[in-house]
Amino acid sequence: MEEKKFSETSRKHYMKGGDGPDSYARNSEYQKQVLISAEDLIHQQIDEHLNIQIPRFDPQNTFRIADFGCSIGPNTFYAVENIISPVKNKYEKSNQNQTPDFQVFFNDLVGNDFNTLFRNLPSNRKYFVAAAPGSFYDHLFPKKSINFAHSSIALQWLSKIPKEVIRRGISKGRIHYLGGEKEVKEAYAAQHEEDFGRFLNARADELVDGGLMALHMVGFADGDAFSLSGIQIEYEILQSCLEDMVELGKITKEKVDSFNLPHYFPSESELKALIEANGSFCIGKIAKLALPARSKLGPKGLTLQIKATLGMLFEEHFGNEVAEEVFKLFLDKLVERPALLDHKYWEHTIYFVFLKRKGVN
Amino acid sequence: MEEKKFSETSRKHYMKGGDGPDSYARNSEYQKQVLISAEDLIHQQIDEHLNIQIPRFDPQNTFRIADFGCSIGPNTFYAVENIISPVKNKYEKSNQNQTPDFQVFFNDLVGNDFNTLFRNLPSNRKYFVAAAPGSFYDHLFPKKSINFAHSSIALQWLSKIPKEVIRRGISKGRIHYLGGEKEVKEAYAAQHEEDFGRFLNARADELVDGGLMALHMVGFADGDAFSLSGIQIEYEILQSCLEDMVELGKITKEKVDSFNLPHYFPSESELKALIEANGSFCIGKIAKLALPARSKLGPKGLTLQIKATLGMLFEEHFGNEVAEEVFKLFLDKLVERPALLDHKYWEHTIYFVFLKRKGVN
Repeated sequence: MEEKKFSETSRKHYMKGGDGPDSYARNSEYQKQVLISAEDLIHQQIDEHLNIQIPRFDPQNTFRIADFGCSIGPNTFYAVENIISPVKNKYEKSNQNQTPDFQVFFNDLVGNDFNTLFRNLPSNRKYFVAAAPGSFYDHLFPKKSINFAHSSIALQWLSKIPKEVIRRGISKGRIHYLGGEKEVKEAYAAQHEEDFGRFLNARADELVDGGLMALHMVGFADGDAFSLSGIQIEYEILQSCLEDMVELGKITKEKVDSFNLPHYFPSESELKALIEANGSFCIGKIAKLALPARSKLGPKGLTLQIKATLGMLFEEHFGNEVAEEVFKLFLDKLVERPALLDHKYWEHTIYFVFLKRKGVN
Repeated sequence: MEEKKFSETSRKHYMKGGDGPDSYARNSEYQKQVLISAEDLIHQQIDEHLNIQIPRFDPQNTFRIADFGCSIGPNTFYAVENIISPVKNKYEKSNQNQTPDFQVFFNDLVGNDFNTLFRNLPSNRKYFVAAAPGSFYDHLFPKKSINFAHSSIALQWLSKIPKEVIRRGISKGRIHYLGGEKEVKEAYAAQHEEDFGRFLNARADELVDGGLMALHMVGFADGDAFSLSGIQIEYEILQSCLEDMVELGKITKEKVDSFNLPHYFPSESELKALIEANGSFCIGKIAKLALPARSKLGPKGLTLQIKATLGMLFEEHFGNEVAEEVFKLFLDKLVERPALLDHKYWEHTIYFVFLKRKGVN
C-alpha cells in the first residue's frame, strides 16, 4: 500500500457536533426527508442489481456497508437500515433464509464528532459497527472490501476552494460561484471534476466486483445552472448579512472577500459524463427525488438547519461571535421579509444516483 | 446475527480523555514500556506461528488487526506498528515481496475519547484505520474476520463489580479484594472467570482459523496472590486517602463502603486453566515481561499515571472535587513517606500471552 493514499485533503469542515439545540443531530430533519424519499428507489435498485451469487454464499461472508459523510446521526442509522433491509430480503429469498453478518463503516472527516455518533448508536441494531475517519476523496478501505457504498447530501462539499479562485481573487465580493462570473463557475466545476473523480476512483478500488453504490447529490436541473435557485437565495442572503457586518464595522471587506463556500452543484449531464469518464461503474439509475419544500421549516427552522451545516465554516473564518451574529441577521431577514420564504426559493434538486461496480463477473 | 450479541456490559469506565496534562495520552509512559518489553517476543511469536498459507496469498487479501482496549493513543499506534512489521516481513520473505493491505480496528468502550484518538493518528501510517466501539466482552466483529487480536493492560478491568460483593456488602471498608476476606477474592475470581471466558469466546468467533492473539495482562506470580504487591500498596494508599476524606467530613463512610475497584489480577495457572477450559486456542507462549520499576516515575509521575487510569472511576462515584482531593492526598502521602517509593512496592507482574486460534487448517 502506498503512503500517498493517506494524504488528507485540505477540507476541515464538518457538521455542528454534540446534541445541543444548535447541533446537526437536532437540525437535520430535511436531510432525513431526502432519505425517506429515496427509500423505494433504493429497495427497488438493490432488488434489481444486488448479485448475491458473487461470491457464492457462505454463511461466514460479511456484507460490508460504508456511509460516506455520515456526520453524527441519527440520519446515518436510518440510511443504513434502509440498505440492510432489502439486502437481507434478497438473501433470505435466495438462500433458504441464510443471511450474512452485516458490518457498517461510518465515515466522515477526522474532525467529525464520532464520540456523539457512538453514543447515539441504536441499541437494537443488528450490525457490527465501525468508524472510518478521513476524507472520502482519499482511499479509506482495503481493495475490494466493501459491498455497498452510500453517501447522502455530502458530495457537494469540495475538498477545497479552487486554487484559481484564491490565486486570482476572481470571486471578490461574492462568497460563491452562483450568480457570479463565468470563470468562477468554471474553476468550481474543474475542482468538482477532480474531486468527484477521486471519489469514484477510491470507491472503485474499495468495492467488490458487482458492488453497489447509492448517492444522494444536491444538483441543478440541466440548463438551470445559472437561474435563481434555493441554494442561490440562501447564499445571497448570507452574503448580504456579511455585507451588513462590514457596514457595522465588525469585519473588514477583505475578510469577506477571502471567504468562499466550498460547494458545487452539478447537473445531471455533468454527473453522467463524469461517471462515464471514470469507467468503473454501470449506471443503474439517475433520478430526481421529490422533496417537501424546505420553506415549511419556517424562518427559525431554516436558519437552524443552515447554521448546523454551514456554521462551522463561518466560525472558522470569522470566529464564533461574528458567526453567531451573521446567523442572527439571517433569521431577522427571513422574519422581516416573509416573501423570501416563498417555496420556489427553497427548492433543491436532489439526484438519486445508483451505480454498480463493473467487474470480471 | 443475534441481537443479544450487542448487549453492552455495564462497565462505563475509561481513561482520561483529551490531551491535557492530566490525560491518559500524556501519562501512559509505563504502558508504553510494557509494549517495548514485549517487542522481541511478539516478533518471534509471529514469525513462528503466523500461517501465511491460510488462506492462500491473494494480493487482494486484507490483514485485519484489532486492538482491544486501545484508549486514546499514542501507545496503541506503537503496538500496531509492532504487529504489522513482523507480519509484513514474513509475507515479504515468502511471497516475492507481496504484502496484503492492513486494516486496523481500534476498540474501546463507547465512552472512550475516539475524537482524540483520530486526531492523533500517525500521518505516516501504512494501514487503513477503523474504530470499533463497545465492550470487548461482547462480540464486536463478524465471524472469522480478524487475523490478529491484541490487548495490552486492559483485561484487568472486569465488566462489573461482582454481584455478591454488592449484594452481601462483604467488602465494606475495603475498596478491593486484595488483602481482604477470602470470599471477596473468590467473588472477584468468579467474575473474572466469566468475563475472560466471554472475551475468549468472542475472539474465538471473530478470529480466522489460525488467527493470532497477543495479550499483556497484569497478574500475580503464582502463589503470591495474597502477598503485599505493587498494586496492593497503590490501593491501600488510595483507601487511606478515602478514609482521610471521611475523617475530614467530606464524604460519608457509606459512600466509601459502596466503592469497589473493578479489577482482577489472575495468576499464570489461573490464566492457563481458563484458556484450556475455553478450548479454542493453542497456547504459543506465556511469559513474564521484564519491566522497569514504576517507582522511578517519582511521586508526581506515579500519581498522574494512576489518576489518568483510575481517576474517572473516582469522579463517577465521588464527583470531580472529591476525586481531585483524593489524588492530592495520594501525592502528599508519597511525598511525606519516601519509603513508600521503595521499588519493591511498585512491581507488577505482566504476563505476555500469545495464542493461536485452532481451526480446521
